[in-house]
Amino acid sequence: MMRDRFLKACRREPVDCTPIWLMRQAGRYMEAYRRLRDRHTMAQLVKTPELAVEITLQPIRAFDLDAAIIYSDILPPLEAMGLEVEFVDGEGPIIHQPLRSRADVEALRETEPRESLSFVLQAIRLTRQELDGRVPLIGFAGAPFTLATYAIEGGSNARNPTQTKMLMYREPQTWHLLMERLARFIGHYLEAQVEAGAQAVQLFDSWVGALSPLDYQSHVAPYSRYVLQTAQATGVPVIHFSTGTCGMIEQIAAAGGDVIAVDWRITLDEAWQRIGPHRAIQGNLDPAVLLGPLEELRRQALDILKRAGNRPGHIFNLGHGILPQTPVEAVAYLVEIVHRESQR
Amino acid sequence: MMRDRFLKACRREPVDCTPIWLMRQAGRYMEAYRRLRDRHTMAQLVKTPELAVEITLQPIRAFDLDAAIIYSDILPPLEAMGLEVEFVDGEGPIIHQPLRSRADVEALRETEPRESLSFVLQAIRLTRQELDGRVPLIGFAGAPFTLATYAIEGGSNARNPTQTKMLMYREPQTWHLLMERLARFIGHYLEAQVEAGAQAVQLFDSWVGALSPLDYQSHVAPYSRYVLQTAQATGVPVIHFSTGTCGMIEQIAAAGGDVIAVDWRITLDEAWQRIGPHRAIQGNLDPAVLLGPLEELRRQALDILKRAGNRPGHIFNLGHGILPQTPVEAVAYLVEIVHRESQR
Repeated sequence: MMRDRFLKACRREPVDCTPIWLMRQAGRYMEAYRRLRDRHTMAQLVKTPELAVEITLQPIRAFDLDAAIIYSDILPPLEAMGLEVEFVDGEGPIIHQPLRSRADVEALRETEPRESLSFVLQAIRLTRQELDGRVPLIGFAGAPFTLATYAIEGGSNARNPTQTKMLMYREPQTWHLLMERLARFIGHYLEAQVEAGAQAVQLFDSWVGALSPLDYQSHVAPYSRYVLQTAQATGVPVIHFSTGTCGMIEQIAAAGGDVIAVDWRITLDEAWQRIGPHRAIQGNLDPAVLLGPLEELRRQALDILKRAGNRPGHIFNLGHGILPQTPVEAVAYLVEIVHRESQR
Repeated sequence: MMRDRFLKACRREPVDCTPIWLMRQAGRYMEAYRRLRDRHTMAQLVKTPELAVEITLQPIRAFDLDAAIIYSDILPPLEAMGLEVEFVDGEGPIIHQPLRSRADVEALRETEPRESLSFVLQAIRLTRQELDGRVPLIGFAGAPFTLATYAIEGGSNARNPTQTKMLMYREPQTWHLLMERLARFIGHYLEAQVEAGAQAVQLFDSWVGALSPLDYQSHVAPYSRYVLQTAQATGVPVIHFSTGTCGMIEQIAAAGGDVIAVDWRITLDEAWQRIGPHRAIQGNLDPAVLLGPLEELRRQALDILKRAGNRPGHIFNLGHGILPQTPVEAVAYLVEIVHRESQR
């Protein structure tokens, strides 16, 4: 491995400078991506390993990033389990027959990710070959709660998951059955990704901030914990990501993960104190800051580095994915100042 | 005043039981409201004092609530300042020519709320007469940041205010000019509401949870503080409401308010501890719980009461507005158990 500071930081080992990668670092803000996207549907990009490899590598070629993350989506597992997912431009994914009843949940397909999601695993294998040890490769999956909200809301309303909460409150047994099946599948999926060559994995619980700490504890945490423990048992570092969870950051950390990823709604030092010193932390720049002047970007990046205080175990990242309108110059500048200003 | 436990709780004085009112307690979930709404546009309901009075009183007649809140909207101040606001069914408000430049901000109308928003003040006067001291009447306004996001995003995207942040970062002087003008107008507006008879006021900073603590501190807090202090100087209790701000609850509290209103993303006891003992607290049930079985509603309401521990200064409420699909039986049940289970 030529550049291992990302993996070292995950394990809270000393590094030469703070590693940085960016959520959705392969995406619309890059012209190379837009050119491919113009010629292919999202589904084609995600399901054709050669295209997924190419997109995964685009930001690695363009910027001095410390990790690659496999280009994919969080919804293929729902498709593998039998739901029909359509990507609508500008609207995000739509699931045409959302889950609403116990019968719907029981009808989900039992499937082996090594078969039903072989295109992702193949993309991981090929990317590892192409990377040839330059930077480590991160695999990922959506967390059971976040996948459940997509499956139940039908996609578009996942930020305000009222139907999801209704199922949770009204039919707790159906809820638990669904979460159990999602957790089992996601656990296998992450194991398969590591087997295929992923050197770290991130669990995305993007919408879990819609819940109260009480509901998280009783209806979600056990399933996240199962998935995180399954992934950790493979031996690679596991990153636990969520947004809007500053009021229950201790419970998020307690559910597991070697690295806790936090959004920008809390300062990094306060978050790390609440997470505890025995975990690494990832974050936590507001993606919108990349749309501002470079001096503002510099000011905010330095503030985060100062709050991390060069303690081992900080991975610089955004609090959520890069926005499509982000200038590439801002990305290059951010990567450069994080490396330069954090030299030990 | 026949029923003053709400005002007493705002001042952290002892009460016979915990007072309760509910954000958006006048609204679509009530048949009486829907009947009026079928015959009138939103704009007519808000701008016709007799209709606003009627809607304000509907939940007071139907439930054993401890306060009325004037039926209105947070956007009339933007209209008064010259923006054109349209309410589109199912989509929320749309502002057709959003603010984007310094010239747009400079072109905002200088206006006296006693004239431009006289319909709200008249509704307050009439409601006080109709209530005849049965329960206190709450006035309200949107906070400068939340109004700025509507004005800049054009309404629909206020939950993800990228344009707003871009203006903030790229044109800080324009931003400060806008916030200053909004703060001054909102301050006058709340003073006028108190003069007209509002016995408490709530400042809604519904979207400020999109910001980092750093940006809140430098770009928003001074303006919220100005408005809150202006309102507090009238002598009535002031409630400071926000959502998604669990990572900066101390800064929200520091900006002011006699009562800090918190959403459901943090437990009430932890929130109160962070806010400090010298403030009252309002909250913090997830509105979605009202869509579940009554025993779940009971369990979660009792959990909140237990965390408040009968300390003076807790006002029971939701963490955000009542959802339109809420059954009226659930509202009646919630009001009843809060009163019964919190008897001192």
